[in-house]
Amino acid sequence: MTKPTLLLLFLATHLPAQTKQLIDLLITGGTAVTMNPARDIQENAAVAIQGDTILAIGPQTELTKRYQPKQTIDAEGKLILPGLINGHTHVPMTLLRGLHDDVTLHDWLYKYIFPAEAKNVTEDFVRWGTRLAAAEQIRGGVTTFADMYYFENAVAEETKAAGMRGVLGETWIDFPAPDNKTEAEMSAYTEKFLKRWQGDPLIQAAVAPHSIYTCSQKTLQDAAALARKYHAPILIHTAEMKKELDDSLKQNGMSPVQYLDKIGILGPDVISAHCIFVDDADRKTLAQRQVGCVHNPSSNMMLASGVSPVAEMRAAGIAVGLGTDGPAGSNNDLDLMEEMDLTAKLAKISKMDPLAMNAKAVVEMATIEGARAVHLEKEIGSLEPGKKADLILIDLDKPNAVPIYDIYAALAYALKGSDVRTVIIGGKVVMRDRKLLTINEPEVLAKAREYKTSIAKSLDMH
Amino acid sequence: MTKPTLLLLFLATHLPAQTKQLIDLLITGGTAVTMNPARDIQENAAVAIQGDTILAIGPQTELTKRYQPKQTIDAEGKLILPGLINGHTHVPMTLLRGLHDDVTLHDWLYKYIFPAEAKNVTEDFVRWGTRLAAAEQIRGGVTTFADMYYFENAVAEETKAAGMRGVLGETWIDFPAPDNKTEAEMSAYTEKFLKRWQGDPLIQAAVAPHSIYTCSQKTLQDAAALARKYHAPILIHTAEMKKELDDSLKQNGMSPVQYLDKIGILGPDVISAHCIFVDDADRKTLAQRQVGCVHNPSSNMMLASGVSPVAEMRAAGIAVGLGTDGPAGSNNDLDLMEEMDLTAKLAKISKMDPLAMNAKAVVEMATIEGARAVHLEKEIGSLEPGKKADLILIDLDKPNAVPIYDIYAALAYALKGSDVRTVIIGGKVVMRDRKLLTINEPEVLAKAREYKTSIAKSLDMH
Repeated sequence: MTKPTLLLLFLATHLPAQTKQLIDLLITGGTAVTMNPARDIQENAAVAIQGDTILAIGPQTELTKRYQPKQTIDAEGKLILPGLINGHTHVPMTLLRGLHDDVTLHDWLYKYIFPAEAKNVTEDFVRWGTRLAAAEQIRGGVTTFADMYYFENAVAEETKAAGMRGVLGETWIDFPAPDNKTEAEMSAYTEKFLKRWQGDPLIQAAVAPHSIYTCSQKTLQDAAALARKYHAPILIHTAEMKKELDDSLKQNGMSPVQYLDKIGILGPDVISAHCIFVDDADRKTLAQRQVGCVHNPSSNMMLASGVSPVAEMRAAGIAVGLGTDGPAGSNNDLDLMEEMDLTAKLAKISKMDPLAMNAKAVVEMATIEGARAVHLEKEIGSLEPGKKADLILIDLDKPNAVPIYDIYAALAYALKGSDVRTVIIGGKVVMRDRKLLTINEPEVLAKAREYKTSIAKSLDMH
Repeated sequence: MTKPTLLLLFLATHLPAQTKQLIDLLITGGTAVTMNPARDIQENAAVAIQGDTILAIGPQTELTKRYQPKQTIDAEGKLILPGLINGHTHVPMTLLRGLHDDVTLHDWLYKYIFPAEAKNVTEDFVRWGTRLAAAEQIRGGVTTFADMYYFENAVAEETKAAGMRGVLGETWIDFPAPDNKTEAEMSAYTEKFLKRWQGDPLIQAAVAPHSIYTCSQKTLQDAAALARKYHAPILIHTAEMKKELDDSLKQNGMSPVQYLDKIGILGPDVISAHCIFVDDADRKTLAQRQVGCVHNPSSNMMLASGVSPVAEMRAAGIAVGLGTDGPAGSNNDLDLMEEMDLTAKLAKISKMDPLAMNAKAVVEMATIEGARAVHLEKEIGSLEPGKKADLILIDLDKPNAVPIYDIYAALAYALKGSDVRTVIIGGKVVMRDRKLLTINEPEVLAKAREYKTSIAKSLDMH
């Protein structure tokens, strides 16, 4: 080596700290699965984080020269991924996890879930259920979730306390809900809720008219109008049941999607869950209106609802994300990596075609396409400078992770939620080496077990 | 309390050790999901183990009075289950995990797997692949697996070294295999293999004629005759592809099952993997011949092979177990708890009936029915005195495990392989608190990564 080269090398490795830019956090040495538009996978990468934002992503050797981090996390031998996005769930229902599975949807709803909710759902229930769900989701690499439930302001407070990102919709439904008994009450509660969270960096308050089969046209339109007044997203179950389709054809003379479009609900602020019974024309409408759709394979299989035409929706240009649905009777967990695996396998078997859906597609649906589906693609879903620093480190030191011929295949089919080692949301480390830092887990588990005892008693179970 | 009562109490709790029976191991304080004929679930249970056998199972308070254990494992707050049984796999293929997924079965076999195997499968490959698979399976609660591959004697040696139980079949196939190039070689290798393992407490050497579409009638019959000479099980892929059915109808004038029956293969020593294309008459035959069948939902979905009529097979009285199949391109892991979840969900969605299969059924298939399917129901599959001490402890201190309204539902739908905490096989602790005690895991992972590099090179991948 020449002397000038040696001098440059010396300078490069010994530059005094003050000439480097001081930053909050540097993740070093992992394989970054960026999910950026080029779908770059960078080995020996580093991610520089300042505040809640990704400042830079690039070769570790470069970034360590450029930045002086207050905190460093070593990702050597691990994958660095954008945080996973659970596009549809009902988090407080974790407290009803596994309450009467293996029954028909009708019995499940009318014999078990609605009575259980009527007797047990309080603001306190919602808080503990949300904490339990946050613990489970963080452990499984979920950093953002879209929720529909009651007392959604309490869901928002607990989501923020857990350091998670949420698109959280207060439910509107045409029967007395556990929180609000009339539309006037729903409207007042929701407006206060929307105002309260405006501008919050983690929480997007939203309005969630439940579905066309539980809401009148007026309820749907009033809910949408209120949402739009505050530029809030609209969350709705869409074409999730055969009966919903049949009834809509009979009552409205058109499919659920066409009906929602006709009455002015659909738009680029809508997140439609399930979308099972959507034909060609419906898919064209959903694409034109830029509705985000969320596929829930576990739930659709467990309730035998049907198979959503995911590949066709994607081909039509619709953003399709993945969701777990609620964890009671229709899943029973909040494991988004399992939904990735199921999405590919369900598509293949239902079309009898092993090429129907590939591993990369389902990783997209859990990350960048999921972000598009919940209309947050400018903020999250990929590792790119300027985006929120929501990222997860995945351990590759387990037998199921070895060997890896293709990273997307490993993520889709072999890696598990339990392989997620460290989770960062908005630049804040919320799980480190599988230790939750924002949730008192033993307390949450104990309280959930207490709730189980009282809920079982209220339903005369033993 | 009266004085005599107090005296009795004192005696009961202070009996000198020598009046208690000395035993090797006592598991105390868990909830035992026995899978015995009454399907008893015992809370605050204990399991007494002597040598490789379960001596007693009952209330902890009683067993602690009766036995003086050399070693105790505290299962307080955990589930105690019979070890899970993986009824069909090809363990060395872990080294090919994820090698070209999302392709057609034909391309996968002929472009990737067969060339990869021809170039790479040696006895050394088989040893390291088996070690990797043993590590993964123990971590996921599998204590027994049924395998079909090449160099099966090496599989057996490594399985025994890992302390696992195996029904291990040397493959017979009508083309030059990586180990044996002719039927004479296959026969000689297999006979030596069968002799070598006779009477082994963990290993059941078996013969595995691959399938009717890769073996002539003579190969099938010779393999079966050799197996029966040594009272060894016969493992075979059965009715796993539509093409196999169509070809059999054309060439043999009957279905694969009827053909196998006609040529004398079927019997109470046969383990048939997949069984997708089995009609009413086939199911009757399989039941009459007491063939064990193994359902592989992940593989069948991923390769889009079809949906096995599991409920109908069970209704016909057939023992149906669960298998992962090989971990390359057709799964890609060895996670039997995932197969339980998939079995129920696939049955529900494929029949559009949420009652098609319940949680208890899939837990049975992973334990006692799986034992029946591999013809080891007298030895394993349930927690009963006299059976082998193959059992697993499952942690309930994770968010996904809380709350539990129904233990079978939790096992089928919410608990994960990673929740398995401790694994005991034949009385020997092989994993304790997620630490593998019989396998040098870092060495195995490193070697598997090395193999990946050379395999990728041999296939001109990068």
